[in-house]
Amino acid sequence: MVDLPEPVERAFEEFRKLPTIGKKTAERIVFNLVNRDPEDLSDLATAILDLKNKVHRCKICGNICEGEVCQICADPKRDHSTICIVEDVANLLAFERTASYQGVYQVLNGLISPVDDIGPDQVGTDHLLDRVNRAKEEGPGIQEVILAISATVEGETTALFIAELLKPYGIKVSRIASGIPVGGDLEYYDELTLMRALEDRRSLN
Amino acid sequence: MVDLPEPVERAFEEFRKLPTIGKKTAERIVFNLVNRDPEDLSDLATAILDLKNKVHRCKICGNICEGEVCQICADPKRDHSTICIVEDVANLLAFERTASYQGVYQVLNGLISPVDDIGPDQVGTDHLLDRVNRAKEEGPGIQEVILAISATVEGETTALFIAELLKPYGIKVSRIASGIPVGGDLEYYDELTLMRALEDRRSLN
Repeated sequence: MVDLPEPVERAFEEFRKLPTIGKKTAERIVFNLVNRDPEDLSDLATAILDLKNKVHRCKICGNICEGEVCQICADPKRDHSTICIVEDVANLLAFERTASYQGVYQVLNGLISPVDDIGPDQVGTDHLLDRVNRAKEEGPGIQEVILAISATVEGETTALFIAELLKPYGIKVSRIASGIPVGGDLEYYDELTLMRALEDRRSLN
Repeated sequence: MVDLPEPVERAFEEFRKLPTIGKKTAERIVFNLVNRDPEDLSDLATAILDLKNKVHRCKICGNICEGEVCQICADPKRDHSTICIVEDVANLLAFERTASYQGVYQVLNGLISPVDDIGPDQVGTDHLLDRVNRAKEEGPGIQEVILAISATVEGETTALFIAELLKPYGIKVSRIASGIPVGGDLEYYDELTLMRALEDRRSLN
């Protein structure tokens, strides 16, 4: 078996650290890069370094932005008394695409997971509490916190923890509905989803 | 809909240029990178730039290497009179993993594809001809050329072209067998594969 050049092996390793990229995909990408124009490689490397140098987290909500505060937190037309809690920026964008939510966000750094030794402070619940306290001192305070977190074990743990955390503040805490996706065929969903869908049924009259 | 920071959009675009990476995967990768330590981003960028700066194509066979000539071409124990033609470095490695081939290689830059306006010179058949001529002048010459090219339209075109090209030299030209993969269940393969498997049947006595 022939050895690959060391820089190629290292590139394999670096690409394999990225999400969704396995051994075969990393190989395909690296061999593709080796065949590409040197300028393409510089462009990719620069784009990656710019993520480090030019992209920051919004100091209020944790969204990504170029300045100190993100577009959403800086927008006076949004409802700053309603905070939607999401587990990452990708989920924030998913809600923004619906163009139906007018409040602001709080982006967690993932979810609480005792199994992986990830506690509340690591996901940023302390930051949320600071924000709630500051809003209370400065004005009318936060009225509602919407938990838009996946219905997984970690998601449930995180949701319960935050609900408990906010209890003393008398803030309305809600959770996005679990149920059957629009257009989804009932038979393909698990018992828990069906049970939740039944529990959260809406009256039509 | 909120706008993403420009560096994030650019990183999306750059990642989407890579093979196997679509819109969603590019997003996941970029958001993952934004959350990672700055050193991780530097490591990835450096690995990519090193592919440009430190990895070259072997001047004999087109394999990737750090020096001028690759490990395989520099190995006196290999049979330099047998050339296996592969369409890219990934395929070369696949054959090397079998540890059963003792000849050398010629790596093409893809396959001839009249539809995509890719002609013989672009895939490097002229380089192959130079090599055959040089081997003839310098010594015993090339004895056999094995075409290890996919059985696609482009693959067949390339294989026929090379076979035609080498006709005047009296070199044995062969093609790896088409058939049913080892362990493959017959019913899952198409008629053409079954037909080829039947045609290329091996006598057992």
